[in-house]
Amino acid sequence: MASFAIGVDLGGTNLRVAAVDNRGVIMEKITTGTEVARPRDQVLDEMCNAISDLAAKFSDANHLAGIGVGIPGIIDMHTGMLHESPNLPGWQDYPVRNEMERRLGTTVILENDANAAALGEKWLGAGSDSDDLCMLTLGTGVGGGLVLGGKIWHGMTGMAGELGHITVDPNGVECGCGNRGCLEQYASATAIKRMAMEAIANGEAPELAYAMNKNPEFSAKLVYELADQGDQPAQQIFRKVGQALGVVLASLVNTFNLRIYVIGGGVSSAWKAFAPSMLEEVRKRSFVYVATTPTDVPAKPRSSGWTTVITHALLGSDAGLIGAARLPMVANGVRLQEEELRQV
Amino acid sequence: MASFAIGVDLGGTNLRVAAVDNRGVIMEKITTGTEVARPRDQVLDEMCNAISDLAAKFSDANHLAGIGVGIPGIIDMHTGMLHESPNLPGWQDYPVRNEMERRLGTTVILENDANAAALGEKWLGAGSDSDDLCMLTLGTGVGGGLVLGGKIWHGMTGMAGELGHITVDPNGVECGCGNRGCLEQYASATAIKRMAMEAIANGEAPELAYAMNKNPEFSAKLVYELADQGDQPAQQIFRKVGQALGVVLASLVNTFNLRIYVIGGGVSSAWKAFAPSMLEEVRKRSFVYVATTPTDVPAKPRSSGWTTVITHALLGSDAGLIGAARLPMVANGVRLQEEELRQV
Repeated sequence: MASFAIGVDLGGTNLRVAAVDNRGVIMEKITTGTEVARPRDQVLDEMCNAISDLAAKFSDANHLAGIGVGIPGIIDMHTGMLHESPNLPGWQDYPVRNEMERRLGTTVILENDANAAALGEKWLGAGSDSDDLCMLTLGTGVGGGLVLGGKIWHGMTGMAGELGHITVDPNGVECGCGNRGCLEQYASATAIKRMAMEAIANGEAPELAYAMNKNPEFSAKLVYELADQGDQPAQQIFRKVGQALGVVLASLVNTFNLRIYVIGGGVSSAWKAFAPSMLEEVRKRSFVYVATTPTDVPAKPRSSGWTTVITHALLGSDAGLIGAARLPMVANGVRLQEEELRQV
Repeated sequence: MASFAIGVDLGGTNLRVAAVDNRGVIMEKITTGTEVARPRDQVLDEMCNAISDLAAKFSDANHLAGIGVGIPGIIDMHTGMLHESPNLPGWQDYPVRNEMERRLGTTVILENDANAAALGEKWLGAGSDSDDLCMLTLGTGVGGGLVLGGKIWHGMTGMAGELGHITVDPNGVECGCGNRGCLEQYASATAIKRMAMEAIANGEAPELAYAMNKNPEFSAKLVYELADQGDQPAQQIFRKVGQALGVVLASLVNTFNLRIYVIGGGVSSAWKAFAPSMLEEVRKRSFVYVATTPTDVPAKPRSSGWTTVITHALLGSDAGLIGAARLPMVANGVRLQEEELRQV
């Protein structure tokens, strides 16, 4: 009897539920429009109904391994509470796991959506031949996920991997998290739009100004299209995105010395616009990268020949969904420090 | 039969070899002055002789678990080669492990000294009740060590944990590693001395100028003594040290969400001069820290009650020696990604 799992990707604009078999093939996917702004309980009911439907449909011929749910925000892995979730108003400090388990009558594994995406890329995407992977997800915000030794690294309470809130510039742009100069302020779709507005306000970007006037849905995607057509102010914005990513990746390479660093999320479609400045920055800033990237420094190859790879994600928008389904398969719901509390 | 191990701490100014029992008690320690600037082969001979002497002396009544050696610099864990070691001239690209094993006729576990210190603090020091620990060692440079799941995190080639080369300020002071604005440029003894010289050159620090003129051995320690006596320019330097540490610790807390972050090395003796600004900076910059430090944010306690602790090291200058002896006991010589090579 083959086995399958149910994965859920609850985004700020989208709810998707899929039955995924144990090779990662999506057997069926249910997507409910862009109405997550609806009341929380309605979304929860719809999500649980979709899960039940898929579970019933495929359980006759297959063994259900479990249910994994990716949610944007800070999850306390001990309690299954969703603490902060800027994109899900009304869900703050809500016991999502308990409420889902009560409705479904079975256990549910809750996970931060960027962690789920990292696990998906680790399983079937850019990191499929590596035990370890570090992923940055560039969307409305910047999420992060760490897979170490094949498992999501949760840290003490499940808040690990907040790589979008690594400091790029200590005196930089204020971030909603309370810090200044977070990566999220330079490499998210929101940041790209902000930088474009700044360039327009400074009178430095006539093409961007024209595009913005013409299109009320002015977005990071539009900035990329202009960059792709050769508009220099738009290209300059993506160079800044790349530089900020490079500063953070250099620190991550010096910290982890992994083989694979993956850039995913919607903004990663603009890879060719930001990757050159990103990689140049990492090469300037990380001696660990230089030492493990022999093609770039032929004068000093390392005998062991291991190479650091910084690449784009392979699973696109399905990474989080596939990663969520993977959660029950690897029984990696909670990897936490279970020692006694210790006070200073 | 009780067991013991031999630990070696090969510093730029000191060679120390100790027999350590399986509870961490130092049975005997051999220290050879400050003459590591002597020829490499002479140091190697002396080190191996001390190891052999201690091994012979204690092997009758105890089982020898193995030999662990902490060395400052970048070690390729696959080959046992020492690649970079600014403080050990003449040792660059030298097969230290092979040479020691040839001389001793037995296996040796080689480790970066900051990693060894982190393992020591994890075993018997500030992290003794935690599985995971992140340590910064503030000395001539700034070293780093990560213990995750009880084991040193080496990454792909053993270069992980270079936390002194995380970027604090992307446009900051040039670092010997090729980057700009590394933590090492703001939180090492070398950096403290440089900042003091800058303050003196700017005419901002009369007491420091007086102390420097009086004492040709002007050092970070002297700057700390003045700070401790209330000299404001000296205190300001340590506030800057604390701020830089705070920026990096905030990023590390957001990345790892560990329970324990430890500050060790000689400069950590100045804890009370830099800790207040360091902790203030972490609190401002890391929402993960705020969420896991309920005493600081009584309005928003987390239900699970887990607390992030940032503290000073407990084992002093013995951390590296004890950690080196611990290496063979935990059989943690190499934790590497042993997958096939993968090209982009």
